[in-house]
Amino acid sequence: MQSITELSPSELRGEYSSLMEEYHKVQDAHLKLNMARGKPAPAQLDLSMEMIHLPKNLKTEDGTDIRNYGILEGLPECRRLFGELLHIHPDQIILGGTSSLNLMFDTMSALHLFGTDGSSPWSFHRYNGHPVKFLCPVPGYDRHFKICEELGMEMIPVPLKKDGPDMEIVKELARSDSSIKGIWCVPLHSNPEGICYSDEIVCELARMETAADDFRIFWDNAYGVHHIYEEIALKNIIDECENCGHPNRVYYFFSTSKITFPGAGVSLIASSPANIAELKKHMSAQTISHDKINQQRHVEFFQTPDGLRRHMDALAGKLRPKFDIVVDTLDKELCGTHLASWSHPKGGYFVSLHTLPGCAKRTVELAKEAGVVLTDAGATYPYGKDPKDSNIRIAPSFPTEQELKEAMTVLVLCIRLAGCEKLMSSHSS
Amino acid sequence: MQSITELSPSELRGEYSSLMEEYHKVQDAHLKLNMARGKPAPAQLDLSMEMIHLPKNLKTEDGTDIRNYGILEGLPECRRLFGELLHIHPDQIILGGTSSLNLMFDTMSALHLFGTDGSSPWSFHRYNGHPVKFLCPVPGYDRHFKICEELGMEMIPVPLKKDGPDMEIVKELARSDSSIKGIWCVPLHSNPEGICYSDEIVCELARMETAADDFRIFWDNAYGVHHIYEEIALKNIIDECENCGHPNRVYYFFSTSKITFPGAGVSLIASSPANIAELKKHMSAQTISHDKINQQRHVEFFQTPDGLRRHMDALAGKLRPKFDIVVDTLDKELCGTHLASWSHPKGGYFVSLHTLPGCAKRTVELAKEAGVVLTDAGATYPYGKDPKDSNIRIAPSFPTEQELKEAMTVLVLCIRLAGCEKLMSSHSS
Repeated sequence: MQSITELSPSELRGEYSSLMEEYHKVQDAHLKLNMARGKPAPAQLDLSMEMIHLPKNLKTEDGTDIRNYGILEGLPECRRLFGELLHIHPDQIILGGTSSLNLMFDTMSALHLFGTDGSSPWSFHRYNGHPVKFLCPVPGYDRHFKICEELGMEMIPVPLKKDGPDMEIVKELARSDSSIKGIWCVPLHSNPEGICYSDEIVCELARMETAADDFRIFWDNAYGVHHIYEEIALKNIIDECENCGHPNRVYYFFSTSKITFPGAGVSLIASSPANIAELKKHMSAQTISHDKINQQRHVEFFQTPDGLRRHMDALAGKLRPKFDIVVDTLDKELCGTHLASWSHPKGGYFVSLHTLPGCAKRTVELAKEAGVVLTDAGATYPYGKDPKDSNIRIAPSFPTEQELKEAMTVLVLCIRLAGCEKLMSSHSS
Repeated sequence: MQSITELSPSELRGEYSSLMEEYHKVQDAHLKLNMARGKPAPAQLDLSMEMIHLPKNLKTEDGTDIRNYGILEGLPECRRLFGELLHIHPDQIILGGTSSLNLMFDTMSALHLFGTDGSSPWSFHRYNGHPVKFLCPVPGYDRHFKICEELGMEMIPVPLKKDGPDMEIVKELARSDSSIKGIWCVPLHSNPEGICYSDEIVCELARMETAADDFRIFWDNAYGVHHIYEEIALKNIIDECENCGHPNRVYYFFSTSKITFPGAGVSLIASSPANIAELKKHMSAQTISHDKINQQRHVEFFQTPDGLRRHMDALAGKLRPKFDIVVDTLDKELCGTHLASWSHPKGGYFVSLHTLPGCAKRTVELAKEAGVVLTDAGATYPYGKDPKDSNIRIAPSFPTEQELKEAMTVLVLCIRLAGCEKLMSSHSS
């Protein structure tokens, strides 16, 4: 296939008008497709329907009535289940409500209100005119960036490489600036790039020198068991931090939002014993206990870590054909055109696409006007600002396969159109 | 009955040793009874067991899949149910997770981190060495005081009168000190006194002049439908604040913790449209949505406000015999002794007892050593300090009737013993 980037100005104009003709036909079809968020499809949710009629047992193994108040840290059975799954000691786990995002916000909020381990509350720095800073590997998860923005933190983007954040940059910044208080990480099948952190990167994060004693890694293992094509192992950062003499450095988050029912799952935070004790102190002022009936529902549904992994295999079976459609369409339609590059994720929820610089916003806009809603361009960067205006997050899970095929046809068309426009304007300038 | 307070020193010594003899017998019985917290009894929880197998319907009335992400403010059906029950417009309600305490903490926390309506964040005052102050009607709920303590707020106790807080004091303080930012209120069947706020008090709270523009009433209507002997009406403070030109003054909290399953219920916060918009902005950084499946479970279980009220009648039927035991025992055993006074609540979860000054801690200690655990003396006051050491909160709901009778026998004995000790020591000094 000849690359569009090699066309002469007049060939380009010809190409553009034929693409436009096609685009108008698509507009006439009045599509209404949404790939904006990483939402499970109904067929995925159906795999958890048995849960609706659980739990059968309303007592813990020691006879406590789970319908009543109490057990702030969550059911022992449930902490053990996730502890075994993730290789974390159950005593280092607190189960939260339905959303790990909520635990992340509350933990960040507690750091701002109370500090940690005797350090000053982080919001103190804001009132002194020097807000704390946080490292944000990019492209990343918009809701992480939103938490920082809401709390008035300054975000510093750090490039993601193929096996994790660029550690030369991370180490230099963390070592030299005590106002840098931490880093966001999605260590497996990252949102949106599908990056999986190598053992070496995990070790470096645990080991590195930081100017701030209260430097904290927000380790959002959102896709920790969400393998689609290949199971990827992840080094245990809690152990690694402990081994490196920085036991309190990491807060580890996990949830079943994309395992059972989003918004009606179980979330958890794990950390060092000292951090867990501190978090429980704050949490005991906030609530008496989280939803133990829902915790028990999950325990009875999965029964064992293997039960949960089998469920993930079934979910992967639903997702794989959709990821195939996205990646195959891009490979087939855009390979060699120099108009875009894209990820080939092994799991998670997204395919990440990079258009020609300056074309992402326009591509998303064109798609929207043709009835296909994508995640806003820029959303994968702090403050919603992609400096190259190039990254687009594709979320294939929610549409049906048929809808996804239609949506991908539109997306490819819009990438071509936006690319043509860009090349035409650079020819004319 | 001759009052113990009128005995001669030698009569008192005789009385004391006969009480001590009785006490040692009780100790030998090795009781293990707990009346420390307002926990529903299993028989109350059994009344909600039908809920375990709900919901049947997994779509909202407009067809949205409630298993998936979304609808931050909660299911319209569920907001309408509670809106009708409490006479609040559904648009002014956000449903939270399982705990209204969590909503209270998060709201107080947001005021500290962000301020409200353009005001300075409240924690700013703490960093300037002048922490904000909050009015705390006493005796009150220990977990309210805990939130203030955790956030470094200064608590100012205000006496509760028979129809609400002493408004002369409240008005004077609120008018004259701009660092006083609000007041805690449990307006119906208050914890622990069982006080119900009169219409006039509600109006005064809504109308009064406050030095702080961001003065906020935390209106914890925890027992809003928890009538046991008599249904008491409560004036709508949201409307009243609106009418008085202070629409943003009140945050209204409610939950089903003591209606269905504690820790697995549904909570809500209600306020003015401006406050709701502000809260939703913060909440959208914190979570995507709360547990809509549990909201739907509650909608299907109650169906209508009348359905919920019928459920409350059934619950009252379980609680009434227990309140009878507590109040009748106190009336029969201690009336005329001048050793104690106690409340005769019309609803709620507690009976409030006042011993002779200086006797509450000792009474609770004696009871504990005889196998009856009561709420810590002092817990009903800020910082756990009852200046008179006189108030004891009795929580009759959890024990069986038989256990409660035994516990009350012990409690009465301990009140007598502590009273004797006190009188003997004042004779000898």
